[in-house]
Amino acid sequence: MKAPYYAVIFTNQRTEEDHGYSEMARKMEDLARQQPGFVDFERARGEIGISVSYWKSLQDIADWKANTDRLFAQEKGKSEWYAWYKVRICFVEREYGFSK
Amino acid sequence: MKAPYYAVIFTNQRTEEDHGYSEMARKMEDLARQQPGFVDFERARGEIGISVSYWKSLQDIADWKANTDRLFAQEKGKSEWYAWYKVRICFVEREYGFSK
Repeated sequence: MKAPYYAVIFTNQRTEEDHGYSEMARKMEDLARQQPGFVDFERARGEIGISVSYWKSLQDIADWKANTDRLFAQEKGKSEWYAWYKVRICFVEREYGFSK
Repeated sequence: MKAPYYAVIFTNQRTEEDHGYSEMARKMEDLARQQPGFVDFERARGEIGISVSYWKSLQDIADWKANTDRLFAQEKGKSEWYAWYKVRICFVEREYGFSK
């Protein structure tokens, strides 16, 4: 997709134990992919985890947040999964790339 | 740092061999950290790699790009390190977080 669109950068530090985290992370990504306005989802984990989801509009992001908040409430909750996290809502102004 | 500021999301797929990649990646991060306007740098790698650098202004990003382009030119070059990559220049509109 060509810019402009939106990105949600979710950076986090996990807690030691799993507490059903992997299952929840899969659900969160599935929720995103099924939702209107979804563009893409990328994730990687080293010392910290970074997930970036891309969306057509801020309203799509608000809707996704409402869904993930419900998921967090149903499940054990963020304080068992994360030592810390940070969410940044961004407007993608420009993009370029390289591919073999 | 409180928003607004800028983010560069660099998503990539590595090639099989190292070709001096680790050394170059360290240099790129060092260059960023020494540069005016630098805010933060986060990175993680799983099946793909995601690095996000944060900057005070678009001009800071342009300056950093000029420096990394020089680095790429000096070194073996991007086609030996990456199967593909994508760069997204973003305006961070809003942020929130959680910390234990």
